[in-house]
Amino acid sequence: MTEVTTRAWAYLSRVVEPPCVELAAMVGRVGPVEAAERVRRGQVDDDLARRTEARREIDRTTEDLELLARRGGRLITPDEDEWPTLAFAAFGGAAAAKPQGRPPLALWALGPARLDETAQRAAALVGTRAATTYGEQVTADLAGGLAEHDVAVISGGAYGIDGAAHRATLAADGVTVAVLAGGLDIPYPAGHSALLHRIAADGLLVTEYPPGVRPARHRFLTRNRLVAVFAGAAVVVEAGLRSGAANTAAWARALGRVVGAVPGPVTSSASTGCHALLRTGAEVITRAEDIVELVGRMGELAPEQPHPATPLDGLDDDERRVYEALPGRGVATVDEIAIAAAVEPARVLAPLAMLEVAGLAERHDGCWRIVRSRRQPA
Amino acid sequence: MTEVTTRAWAYLSRVVEPPCVELAAMVGRVGPVEAAERVRRGQVDDDLARRTEARREIDRTTEDLELLARRGGRLITPDEDEWPTLAFAAFGGAAAAKPQGRPPLALWALGPARLDETAQRAAALVGTRAATTYGEQVTADLAGGLAEHDVAVISGGAYGIDGAAHRATLAADGVTVAVLAGGLDIPYPAGHSALLHRIAADGLLVTEYPPGVRPARHRFLTRNRLVAVFAGAAVVVEAGLRSGAANTAAWARALGRVVGAVPGPVTSSASTGCHALLRTGAEVITRAEDIVELVGRMGELAPEQPHPATPLDGLDDDERRVYEALPGRGVATVDEIAIAAAVEPARVLAPLAMLEVAGLAERHDGCWRIVRSRRQPA
Repeated sequence: MTEVTTRAWAYLSRVVEPPCVELAAMVGRVGPVEAAERVRRGQVDDDLARRTEARREIDRTTEDLELLARRGGRLITPDEDEWPTLAFAAFGGAAAAKPQGRPPLALWALGPARLDETAQRAAALVGTRAATTYGEQVTADLAGGLAEHDVAVISGGAYGIDGAAHRATLAADGVTVAVLAGGLDIPYPAGHSALLHRIAADGLLVTEYPPGVRPARHRFLTRNRLVAVFAGAAVVVEAGLRSGAANTAAWARALGRVVGAVPGPVTSSASTGCHALLRTGAEVITRAEDIVELVGRMGELAPEQPHPATPLDGLDDDERRVYEALPGRGVATVDEIAIAAAVEPARVLAPLAMLEVAGLAERHDGCWRIVRSRRQPA
Repeated sequence: MTEVTTRAWAYLSRVVEPPCVELAAMVGRVGPVEAAERVRRGQVDDDLARRTEARREIDRTTEDLELLARRGGRLITPDEDEWPTLAFAAFGGAAAAKPQGRPPLALWALGPARLDETAQRAAALVGTRAATTYGEQVTADLAGGLAEHDVAVISGGAYGIDGAAHRATLAADGVTVAVLAGGLDIPYPAGHSALLHRIAADGLLVTEYPPGVRPARHRFLTRNRLVAVFAGAAVVVEAGLRSGAANTAAWARALGRVVGAVPGPVTSSASTGCHALLRTGAEVITRAEDIVELVGRMGELAPEQPHPATPLDGLDDDERRVYEALPGRGVATVDEIAIAAAVEPARVLAPLAMLEVAGLAERHDGCWRIVRSRRQPA
């Protein structure tokens, strides 16, 4: 990669809030150098102009790349062998129906692990920040077991389950990857500075955000798709009902990854999210070998479909039936949808979860309703 | 019911080790009085002669019925309104392929609850004798919640989960039924004498064994089919991998009942059986309402098929495919069977469990092999 190309990717990586379909499409058509030039000059269509106008005159490329070089990091772009092409193929499926369901434009990375190779045999271990002693212990056991089986452990660097996963993997000399929701120079949470430093030394820190970008709520949700896509399976160890981990699991499903959940005491609110996932078809995980088996299957997964022309093209038969069973207006209960779809109630939940991730359906007061699909960008 | 009929049922109830297809068939043809007479005189075919010769000259009918009357009990037979005809219709399905998969000939009962009515809205709560504090607490919460929802709690009277289920139901003024593996006059386990006495006073003790019969291992396994058949759903709260509760769950599946399992800590061996059931499709149970929903569905279950002519007639499509995928000789792993059946590995386990209950397949060193079906009695 020439310096001018690297500089173009670095500029493009900051100029929009990722992911940006319009920008990715233009880069695909004219290449990064020309795309950067057109954005800089404002020679872009209205959609992209709106997405880039706030930042197109900010050019921190030199400082960003100097900071990266000083820390020993690198920019991973679609031009590099390290770009995880195989893993990102999953974005071509049902996930593409959702605005954020796109690959990143480029990745800022720091650490000795090679991303493409790591992603070929990896599991995500995720969960609540408010982990119990039980959850942290189980996470450590699972991570240690995965390390022994040469399965990399992907997580989000947060307190609780994430931190336990990273720490136990490092302790077992395994490979661990923390996917950040901000710049490489912004250790978050601050209390994990030392841990993140160790991950950068032995594993990999990776983010689609350029230096200086601070984590924000929407960035965690967007980041979660990368935690899911870098792993063959996403395992939730402990999570509340509406947790970030459940969001990662939903991404994993939309991306055709296996979702697993660790059972826990029904008296523990930290396990309610896991039990909800088990109800909707997540695999029961009780030991590391269960995950190894799931990750091992990854190579057997059918290749993802090419980009769908409409969001509905990405749906499988069950999802389509359930989608078609949603009332044209108003809401319906799960049982009503099951009757309309002529599907057992238990088989309605997983498709509904998928439709929710795909932005085609949404929950409303315990019922479900259709979300009218906005026109997809061409 | 005339006294002579009652005496005939009581005699027949003791003369074979139940259930006995041959005896039931003869009673169906000639009625209990004539059947008792023929057995007593030895005027029966060879099969039935073998089953009855050891006991046909023992006539404890007078003593048995006196003991029953003294305790205020009753004999429930197919001649009575209280006979749970609807519940026993389930024996007409896949369960009939297994020797013990038959209704009892008659039931010895003690307690104010009416069996037929109770069985219309009931759940079985079962589990290990070696329950943890967690398991007993969850059992008590579930039983109390079921009592509040007017769902009767069926169990086996044992230490651990069973006892916790009975006790909590009584404490909540609910109806609880203990199905015994021996005579009504043999409180088992002895340490539960007082509890069984309270169940007899407020709920129901029921058994197919006449007075004086002692519980034995094979009787517990045979008894388990009644625990399953009297309930719309069988919920395992805590169980090891090869437990009686898993046997009850297998009966429940064979009888077309819903199976539920309560998740627990993956670090607790008392929950391993539950997690295994969850892997093979059991419903996730975290609170009483989950069970109420399952029991509520019972009325919507399709009616069971009539008695099959061969054991294979009772199988559903998946079970038949898996059965046909078993090798003609030798053993196969679950994965090999899945490939041969062109079914996902996860969908092979439940059919295999059913085939095992039906006596058509058996485990051998972690693999599975076919059991050649012996000729069914005409």
